[in-house]
Amino acid sequence: MKGTVLYGPGDIRFEDREDPKIAAPTDAILRLSATCVCGSDLWPYRGLQPIDGPTPMGHEYCGIVEEVGSAVKFIKPGQFVVGSFATSDNTCPHCPYGYQSSCMHREFMLRAQAPFLRVPQADGTLVATPGGVPSPDLVPSLLAASDVLGTGWFAADAANVKPGGTVVVVGDGAVGLLGVLSAKQMGAGRIIAMSRHEARQKLAREFGATDIVTERGDAGIARIKDLTKGIGADSVLECVGTQESMMQAIHSTRPGGYMSYVGVPHGVELDAQQLFFTHIHLHGGPARVRRFLPKLIDLILKGTITPGKVFDLTLLLAQVAEGYRAMDERRAIKALLKP
Amino acid sequence: MKGTVLYGPGDIRFEDREDPKIAAPTDAILRLSATCVCGSDLWPYRGLQPIDGPTPMGHEYCGIVEEVGSAVKFIKPGQFVVGSFATSDNTCPHCPYGYQSSCMHREFMLRAQAPFLRVPQADGTLVATPGGVPSPDLVPSLLAASDVLGTGWFAADAANVKPGGTVVVVGDGAVGLLGVLSAKQMGAGRIIAMSRHEARQKLAREFGATDIVTERGDAGIARIKDLTKGIGADSVLECVGTQESMMQAIHSTRPGGYMSYVGVPHGVELDAQQLFFTHIHLHGGPARVRRFLPKLIDLILKGTITPGKVFDLTLLLAQVAEGYRAMDERRAIKALLKP
Repeated sequence: MKGTVLYGPGDIRFEDREDPKIAAPTDAILRLSATCVCGSDLWPYRGLQPIDGPTPMGHEYCGIVEEVGSAVKFIKPGQFVVGSFATSDNTCPHCPYGYQSSCMHREFMLRAQAPFLRVPQADGTLVATPGGVPSPDLVPSLLAASDVLGTGWFAADAANVKPGGTVVVVGDGAVGLLGVLSAKQMGAGRIIAMSRHEARQKLAREFGATDIVTERGDAGIARIKDLTKGIGADSVLECVGTQESMMQAIHSTRPGGYMSYVGVPHGVELDAQQLFFTHIHLHGGPARVRRFLPKLIDLILKGTITPGKVFDLTLLLAQVAEGYRAMDERRAIKALLKP
Repeated sequence: MKGTVLYGPGDIRFEDREDPKIAAPTDAILRLSATCVCGSDLWPYRGLQPIDGPTPMGHEYCGIVEEVGSAVKFIKPGQFVVGSFATSDNTCPHCPYGYQSSCMHREFMLRAQAPFLRVPQADGTLVATPGGVPSPDLVPSLLAASDVLGTGWFAADAANVKPGGTVVVVGDGAVGLLGVLSAKQMGAGRIIAMSRHEARQKLAREFGATDIVTERGDAGIARIKDLTKGIGADSVLECVGTQESMMQAIHSTRPGGYMSYVGVPHGVELDAQQLFFTHIHLHGGPARVRRFLPKLIDLILKGTITPGKVFDLTLLLAQVAEGYRAMDERRAIKALLKP
């Protein structure tokens, strides 16, 4: 098969790779129905995160089980499955708390921008769709559940979004937009999306945003304070991972409010004394996608949510380099790749 | 009257001061029954926190109301009252959430190491003991409620201590010890106190600690992991405020667990990416003493808790300098000062 490899900043290649094989008895091999490019893939693509030689890319996936290892009990060939970007055995001490993305046997997935994929810890990582293989028009939404929807949902959950609450979402990438969708599902009364990009503002409104703020940094914080009578928001979802976005989120939260951060922070330092006097609750980390997958799959199959709308560009896998370029240049929110 | 003034590192003086007077119609004047020296007073006493000229000291207090301003409705002369180290009007948008210590009209108290004290926002800051003036033997415990008990309680509350949970307390000052007491009241199943000091270990055990860990830093973290089967604690209370103690607390918490920090951090920087991968919940800030005061006063008056045991040195106000010295040299946990 061919697969996607990053050789250096801006240098994405789709090239011959070995077919994945069962390597451990807990593995499964999937034939992917779709995969995609993640905002987090842009960090190394832009040279902002060093890579150690040519690196196979991709961690979002769904598809049909081709084969399973001898120790796999619940996942069966022929099932349509969605998995998290972080593998989990679902039995270690952290997993039962719903923190499967800190599983003691966690591996971060790679190599998913390809037609076939080996998934470790198949029973603990994958969730099969009930009712068999779903209709193809649901595939984009199910693919979104693998990371960006699961991450947006975790962002809303970790920011303690409650019915009637005021929510701010910092970041208008796919995760931020699906943070808006998640906050809406959780009953937020007011959802303020921070975005300067017209197409993204439109999707944010479609997903449930009630207000759009285009200002950033101190001006963005001042605007949030204006909109909330000087108080700040109950829940703030930080979906970027830069120093500026973290500061914007921290200072948009009311004392006693909740801020989540779900994008891997890059070069962000927090002054603990400053944080102390903001009086906020802070929670984040690798999204607990596996924890939420059954619920998210159910909402998608029922047609309650359509997170697949974040894919505004569909390409063949062989065109993966264009997917990276389009997202890097913000011409696309998110690129879906078809085998 | 005479009052306590810090002139510079190690230079505490008890000297002539003006008698406090009603300055705003929302003020009250108290005749203090007792006051004390706080661990946080040691930061400037040790020269680790700059002061801007001679600084009147003291923020923990309880006593009899002498006089109230014309706008004070609920607090009356003759009542015995306890107040928070942070004033609050108890009506601003943050106060109803229980975040009175981030009240929009907050002032941090000073000047309490004296026989008389002016308290701003008397109705929102002070709580009168039900049933009139309490027995003198309860005064130390009621005084503790003004800060160290309220702060230890907030630490346990912010760290989400639940019945049966495993709790670690970092810091064996009065706040840490009362964090142990608070965790015990909240039903913690196991309470691990980190302390190297025999008298403090003894009091920690009396307050409910089930285990004592004497190691610090990485060795301390390793010991906590040993005691928790490699998992980490559900709840960790950070009651010091240094880089080392914060790191010790963060890395003693299990993924998905809760860490609180209640001492003003001094020179502490947090790497957000490192924090992200710990997957912990973080909450802290100036303790919500006013929020908890009615409950804490009730527990003290009923005899359920005796937080006043943290005072292992009693001096006259005029001996205040010896109180600072004894605490600085760790000869005393906490010094109570009598007018």
